[in-house]
Amino acid sequence: MSVPAGPPQAEVRHHNLSVVLRRVHTEGAVSRSELTRATGVNRSTTAALVAALARAGLVREEIPRTHRSAGRPSPMVLPVPERAQVIALEVGVERIRAERVGLGGTVLAEHTLLPPTDGPAAFEETVARLAGLVESLGEPAAAAGNCTGIGIAVPGLVRRADGLVRFAPNLQWTDEPLAAALSERLPQPWSQVPIAVGNDADLGALGEHARGAARGYDDFVYISANVGVGGGLFCGGRPVPGQRGYAGEIGHMIVNPRGRQCRCGARGCWETEIGTDVIIEAAGLQVPYDHSLSGVVEAAAGGDERAVRALDDAARWLAIGLGNLAAVLSPRLVIFGGGLQDIYEATFDQIELYSATTGLARSRAPYTHRRSALAHRAPLVGAAELAMAPLLDDPLGSGRPLA
Amino acid sequence: MSVPAGPPQAEVRHHNLSVVLRRVHTEGAVSRSELTRATGVNRSTTAALVAALARAGLVREEIPRTHRSAGRPSPMVLPVPERAQVIALEVGVERIRAERVGLGGTVLAEHTLLPPTDGPAAFEETVARLAGLVESLGEPAAAAGNCTGIGIAVPGLVRRADGLVRFAPNLQWTDEPLAAALSERLPQPWSQVPIAVGNDADLGALGEHARGAARGYDDFVYISANVGVGGGLFCGGRPVPGQRGYAGEIGHMIVNPRGRQCRCGARGCWETEIGTDVIIEAAGLQVPYDHSLSGVVEAAAGGDERAVRALDDAARWLAIGLGNLAAVLSPRLVIFGGGLQDIYEATFDQIELYSATTGLARSRAPYTHRRSALAHRAPLVGAAELAMAPLLDDPLGSGRPLA
Repeated sequence: MSVPAGPPQAEVRHHNLSVVLRRVHTEGAVSRSELTRATGVNRSTTAALVAALARAGLVREEIPRTHRSAGRPSPMVLPVPERAQVIALEVGVERIRAERVGLGGTVLAEHTLLPPTDGPAAFEETVARLAGLVESLGEPAAAAGNCTGIGIAVPGLVRRADGLVRFAPNLQWTDEPLAAALSERLPQPWSQVPIAVGNDADLGALGEHARGAARGYDDFVYISANVGVGGGLFCGGRPVPGQRGYAGEIGHMIVNPRGRQCRCGARGCWETEIGTDVIIEAAGLQVPYDHSLSGVVEAAAGGDERAVRALDDAARWLAIGLGNLAAVLSPRLVIFGGGLQDIYEATFDQIELYSATTGLARSRAPYTHRRSALAHRAPLVGAAELAMAPLLDDPLGSGRPLA
Repeated sequence: MSVPAGPPQAEVRHHNLSVVLRRVHTEGAVSRSELTRATGVNRSTTAALVAALARAGLVREEIPRTHRSAGRPSPMVLPVPERAQVIALEVGVERIRAERVGLGGTVLAEHTLLPPTDGPAAFEETVARLAGLVESLGEPAAAAGNCTGIGIAVPGLVRRADGLVRFAPNLQWTDEPLAAALSERLPQPWSQVPIAVGNDADLGALGEHARGAARGYDDFVYISANVGVGGGLFCGGRPVPGQRGYAGEIGHMIVNPRGRQCRCGARGCWETEIGTDVIIEAAGLQVPYDHSLSGVVEAAAGGDERAVRALDDAARWLAIGLGNLAAVLSPRLVIFGGGLQDIYEATFDQIELYSATTGLARSRAPYTHRRSALAHRAPLVGAAELAMAPLLDDPLGSGRPLA
């Protein structure tokens, strides 16, 4: 019989260009022979792929000066950060963070804005401030024609398809069209650049997977507890988006039906037990400007009984929610991000102890837990990866940097 | 530049053979032109793929006698059920079900065994009975050399890699090597046939996705409540296995920390509130042999107050757990299987009502819920699909029917 044709050759080339650029972007410096293994094509084809990316200015080659093995050294392929630049933004309750990030993940510039007033800023005002940040921080990229994308992390439910923020209780936003509003406000060339918006915990997971504590893990949960509690899920090496991108709202699992009222309208959501403000108030302390738990941890370390009890309670509820996630998803790894990092460090032993009493504890697969490697930067790193994704998917196609 | 080579041609051919056979297996009768669209290769290549599968006896072609459009009718391609046969087994507390299933999902024979004694049978005895069923039910397949695989559904944690049953509380099994023990007991040719073991709810989900209520859905949760409560999760069109295949143990989410002791060792697991026996006992009735809820539903319909209250409580706890799953996974569809089907029918309005008070109810994406289309057969259908998978993945390769 005749041998069936494969996919069209152009498609194969796109795919292999994407494999090469993604590898260079994630690893930083990759030898050509490693790229040959990664693509599964022969050496001369790999050389041609690298040459095409180099002509587009996206990568450069370097011959290593010293090498251990015999024979001609394999040229190293490196990303050219300036050639493809994204603006990563994180809209938080207490601050807006921004970074200009180049291919390979290099941070080229950064800026943090504090809110002008107490409490969350109104939507219109936030959009104006974001637009200002993009313009000022992004100027060198715009001047060079290297603007590739904008990624924004938001603490709320985000509809991925069009960047609408469905509900962000701590910002007091409901149904705000963030991507559209920002795009409208931006001048050329930024108004032409794709804007992708994601939930902060989803992007934290993406960041940790690309450059943090979850590298090499296919099945993990990233938990971020601040005022609210969010989660980012990976299964089989890919994010779990759920319908419209709404998965991962783990802070709204009901764990205590007789518990406190949640801002979402329900009673006893997980975040009513382990949200930072709840723990700070249970310890009898004033909630500080940045909602940090360090005061509680210090008071507990100093022997303050209310603080000790508040942390112990938090550990117990943490263990219950973790147990629920382990039962449903059976992840290999759980990462503690946001303010949760402080509780995790301070109550590690209690979490272990209480975990032994949660659902299926005796039989389920054990999982590793660790604190975030990127700490508070995780959502921002994820926002940059989100903004870079179209270029990585199709390096010389429609997602390419602006001429 | 030179055009990169695609994957090796043999690999492309394997892939396309798999696409064709899988489509014929799932759809039953597919026109050649539809297969051409599905594979993306040209018509003569499709014809050659079909011819290769026909030579192996796996499919046959038929010219439709009547057709509406002008021109030569496209030949229909049909599965040959007898050529590739699997044995699907379900080990339940109250019975063992078995089916011999041919390519295309045709049930060629079936048999149900009741337990010889009260209560769950010991592991060794169950293995002996399973072996007997395989031999008797499978005889025609063995005689014709068409034994393709054995799939087994078990109500417990199953380690997919080697078919070890880690923990099945209702069977009182811990760490029982089911696949290995059954294989050892079987005579030729069955001892050479691959045995795959899966959790009953995972396989219920697989069954509903292939041939039931979840056809066409990429993101759904299948919930099966009997004595225990299990779940099968699909995300992005694929099952979510979790570590070692242990995901989906949704019955062991803790929803009521002040609640009842669970057989798993924890307190307040979801199944301590919505397991069938719990509801039956709350209604003041004796648990019947088959753990069916029909007695409770009848009593409630007749106005019995305890039964009404038991169902109302069940609906409330059902809504809480469903809300938790919606928050974490945001599925498009939830399917009620097992004994849960009866509660679902009887308490639909209350579930809706209580759902409005669960986590994020006002903001999250709405999901459809419906009862299982395959009813009690769902895990068995999934077990057959599991056993057929190696053949579908590589129709003329190592997973082929025995000569």
